Amino acid sequence: MAQTAVRFGILGCANIARQLSRAIALSSNTALCAVASRSVEKAQKFVADNSLPSTVKIYGEYGEVLDDPDIDAVYIPLPTTLHVKWAVAAAEKKKHVLLEKPVALDVAELDRILEACESNGVQFMDGTVWVHHPRTGRMKEALGDERCFGQLKLIHSVLGYNAGPDFLKNDIRVKPDLDALGALGDIGWYCIRSILWAADYELPKTVVAMHKPVYNDLGVILSTGASLYWEDGKVATFYCSFLSHMTFDLTVLGTKGALRVNDLVSPFQESYGSFSLVSESDFAHLEPGRWAPVPQEHRVGSEVPQEVLMVNEFAKSVAKIRGEGLKPDWEWAKISRMTQLVMDAVKASMEKGFQAVEPVEYS
Amino acid sequence: MAQTAVRFGILGCANIARQLSRAIALSSNTALCAVASRSVEKAQKFVADNSLPSTVKIYGEYGEVLDDPDIDAVYIPLPTTLHVKWAVAAAEKKKHVLLEKPVALDVAELDRILEACESNGVQFMDGTVWVHHPRTGRMKEALGDERCFGQLKLIHSVLGYNAGPDFLKNDIRVKPDLDALGALGDIGWYCIRSILWAADYELPKTVVAMHKPVYNDLGVILSTGASLYWEDGKVATFYCSFLSHMTFDLTVLGTKGALRVNDLVSPFQESYGSFSLVSESDFAHLEPGRWAPVPQEHRVGSEVPQEVLMVNEFAKSVAKIRGEGLKPDWEWAKISRMTQLVMDAVKASMEKGFQAVEPVEYS
Repeated sequence: MAQTAVRFGILGCANIARQLSRAIALSSNTALCAVASRSVEKAQKFVADNSLPSTVKIYGEYGEVLDDPDIDAVYIPLPTTLHVKWAVAAAEKKKHVLLEKPVALDVAELDRILEACESNGVQFMDGTVWVHHPRTGRMKEALGDERCFGQLKLIHSVLGYNAGPDFLKNDIRVKPDLDALGALGDIGWYCIRSILWAADYELPKTVVAMHKPVYNDLGVILSTGASLYWEDGKVATFYCSFLSHMTFDLTVLGTKGALRVNDLVSPFQESYGSFSLVSESDFAHLEPGRWAPVPQEHRVGSEVPQEVLMVNEFAKSVAKIRGEGLKPDWEWAKISRMTQLVMDAVKASMEKGFQAVEPVEYS
Repeated sequence: MAQTAVRFGILGCANIARQLSRAIALSSNTALCAVASRSVEKAQKFVADNSLPSTVKIYGEYGEVLDDPDIDAVYIPLPTTLHVKWAVAAAEKKKHVLLEKPVALDVAELDRILEACESNGVQFMDGTVWVHHPRTGRMKEALGDERCFGQLKLIHSVLGYNAGPDFLKNDIRVKPDLDALGALGDIGWYCIRSILWAADYELPKTVVAMHKPVYNDLGVILSTGASLYWEDGKVATFYCSFLSHMTFDLTVLGTKGALRVNDLVSPFQESYGSFSLVSESDFAHLEPGRWAPVPQEHRVGSEVPQEVLMVNEFAKSVAKIRGEGLKPDWEWAKISRMTQLVMDAVKASMEKGFQAVEPVEYS
């Protein structure tokens, strides 16, 4: 079984499923075997529109994929409100779970999902694609090089896009019954994740939401932000918005260096990602106003799109469970849970008039 | 008189005076005529070390420059604590005042300085050099182009440098009796100024300091930050530190565009400054993961160092007062005062346990 491709079913045919369905089809160790939507017609249209193989089974109910014995794993790009129901159901049917972000409305929901995965011995991973780009590993090496970067002091993340009137009226990400976390769930998730990634997944001690969040008429977050504080003095800030120009910035400052990336979530180019790095820069003594050294661009190539790398990584863990009888790799679940804890704390701080909140209070 | 160079005296020979003394010597409409320090020897050494003209008069007391009838204007790079005394004294002797930042410890002090300048009809300008670089004007044009940039949503500014152990022990900027505002006064001033500059000098409604500021043993700020909020929903965040790698970042986000600069206060190169601009970028439909357009670098040349441009601008106002009998250009004073108001609000918020503070309360 170890050499057999992991057979995927997709639950839901939202736009967001397009890239992943292609990635599952492209990845060497996975096969896209089934697509389910709320109607057979929608699923058929999705398969046709995305030129998916004719061998892909079409289902008009999500549950049919879970009952299919020829499916090993599911990718769940459904609205967040439906995650707990379908991720738990999938785990109970022994399907491995690749769950789109935000993974849940709060950590209590996520814990139900994780408990179901754990007790059924299935792999869990959330759909945070950018962490699988080779650039991410190279950036982490740079941050971890104390000689060049020193101690971490500040992390700042800004993610946004101008969603436009149609999205702001109709998209699931602005509907309280579908994706109630709005911009905080959609792109704030990436902000928080990037901060935790830079901070070596150390939970902040204090989270304070920014004032003046923007909500739509139904109470869904369109724009918000927060600052995060650790005991050792490092701080982080983030801002996420559906109302500003497309921006995927991460800045990480250490005592000795600075790292910047402006296309964190989706590199400008598909074949490589770049980041800017500078270490021990100072004013050049002979020429006032000039710096030495100046920040340098570092390019990191990627032979396949980052979505394929994520699917591949997930499938490798699944293959180990199936072929070698290993336990699921639980690191991904821990990282998802920490991201959710911070997200819950941001929301709690917003609800408490922007007071300081300790993330663990909400675990 | 209109064609005569403005004759400058410098009060204080700190390191910070080096660039400006050279700029005064270089600028076509100014002449460096006197240097004063607490001792004649220090002033002599400063003139020699910086290869200043032999015609420069040497004074061993600040007050002697103010009594010199051949001096039109003074540049005051003294520690902040001394600003109110010497700037007021200079104005009362009818000397125009170019005052190093931070201009004062609080707005009450600044108001004493400004009242003295106004009642004596002398020009006031603070030493915020970067606003005089031609790049700054070009960036402002870009931000003002609503078709390309849309409405302003977020401003984020990070300024810092790793001051190192000698500075942190001995520099005037970490001494409570000299520059009590520490990093907030030194580089936080630029953060606040850049935010106000991007916001068309509209005072924010609310200022909230970041938690976990770092103080030295004597209570001087080594690291702090804040978020600023306006009625129309735009927000700003900043962070300033003596403890992190040299970073002069400004990011401005609109609904349609994004502008970024990483060397705001002092361009990487002396001959030009660059900034990154992107407008209406989106994912390219045919190539997933690629953006179109990507941010473009814009270079703006500067024939002379930015310090020379500031001195030149100041001297032009002085020449108009002397030659044409015009009143001082009071816009610079208003901008300094607004910067100080926000700085006072940040400090007040820090002192009130990071509560929200309205800047005008402290006027």
